[in-house]
Amino acid sequence: MNDHASAPVEGIRDEVIALKRERIMAAAVDLFYERGYERTTLEAVAERLGVTKPFIYSYFNSKTELLAEICARGIESSLAAMNSVLGTRMSPTEKLRLLGHRFVIAVLESQKHIAIFSREEKNLLSEDFERISSLRREFDKKLTSLIDAGVRSHEFSVGDSRLAALAIGGMVSWAYVWYRPHGRFELSEIAERMSELILAMAHARPKNRATARVGRRRRNPAT
Amino acid sequence: MNDHASAPVEGIRDEVIALKRERIMAAAVDLFYERGYERTTLEAVAERLGVTKPFIYSYFNSKTELLAEICARGIESSLAAMNSVLGTRMSPTEKLRLLGHRFVIAVLESQKHIAIFSREEKNLLSEDFERISSLRREFDKKLTSLIDAGVRSHEFSVGDSRLAALAIGGMVSWAYVWYRPHGRFELSEIAERMSELILAMAHARPKNRATARVGRRRRNPAT
Repeated sequence: MNDHASAPVEGIRDEVIALKRERIMAAAVDLFYERGYERTTLEAVAERLGVTKPFIYSYFNSKTELLAEICARGIESSLAAMNSVLGTRMSPTEKLRLLGHRFVIAVLESQKHIAIFSREEKNLLSEDFERISSLRREFDKKLTSLIDAGVRSHEFSVGDSRLAALAIGGMVSWAYVWYRPHGRFELSEIAERMSELILAMAHARPKNRATARVGRRRRNPAT
Repeated sequence: MNDHASAPVEGIRDEVIALKRERIMAAAVDLFYERGYERTTLEAVAERLGVTKPFIYSYFNSKTELLAEICARGIESSLAAMNSVLGTRMSPTEKLRLLGHRFVIAVLESQKHIAIFSREEKNLLSEDFERISSLRREFDKKLTSLIDAGVRSHEFSVGDSRLAALAIGGMVSWAYVWYRPHGRFELSEIAERMSELILAMAHARPKNRATARVGRRRRNPAT
């Protein structure tokens, strides 16, 4: 039996595959973002990376598969942020504060991916579009439930939890349009301030006022 | 002198031109939305309308000009809503409430136009893209000033007026993604509820509590 020997080797192999896929995706993101999906060939992606086209084909079956992975990234990261928060034992207020913070970071770290999804939606296979849409619905549903929980515990006051969830989803998702790295605020400060705006929108009145703050406020009076 | 006679005739002629341009735009919006800009020819637009291609050329110089008009529509309507509110003598709270309402309506009545702008941005001539971007900047600047005015009059409390303006712009603009006509709420009810969420986000505490409400709340507990 060589179970003990082969497990780490397999682990490393999987990490190498993941790493190579990430590199290919990063090159494709830049090109799809600059030139558009239809005007970008897999040859161009290979050239940008300094590899051959068959190399790309060993990690992605097609250009559409590459597009689908890129388009799914923003909502996958947002959903990972959501699940990490829902797994804690915090109050609804603390959960919403932490979610706001992590959701903003997830969106702004996927800025180009989200721009590509907005532009290229029509170039996705219908099954890929459906998968991404169902992730979005899952996110909206979980956010609605979190707001509902806060309403039940009398921490939040909103007229309609689902509309509030869509409003929060929108104010954060739209940040891909206006965010510029090296702007007035650091990424983490934007995340904290947006998180405060989200709590205000929910009329959050935490039962225990001494809630922990996410991150530290940085003074950065630039530009 | 036939000033008195020609003025109404000119007025009618301008209205007829405007009407025909609107009809052409509406057909182009549907086709660009369904098929994408690049896959839609002016012949197809003419065919959809039951007119000839030269007819279209008498109202638009090119397909790009048509695209630019479509892409500008969402922000032009939003800015018209903004200017109509800023022209009143209401308090910052009342202005923000009314703006929220009219801005939501402007966005949702331009739902397809905004979707087309998000997708086809890269197909705009750079001068058209610049014009649209400057309208967006004007909107954000005016909203920031309105929030600032509310902070000065102690009606609003926000950490950073500009970030709050971008958050409001985002939560409303993003509604083009999730809004479906004939959904749970009427358009005017969505507008009123979003407007309440905006006021909450600004921690609005109007000096005079007896502010007029925009529209009437309708109970519509559908689907």
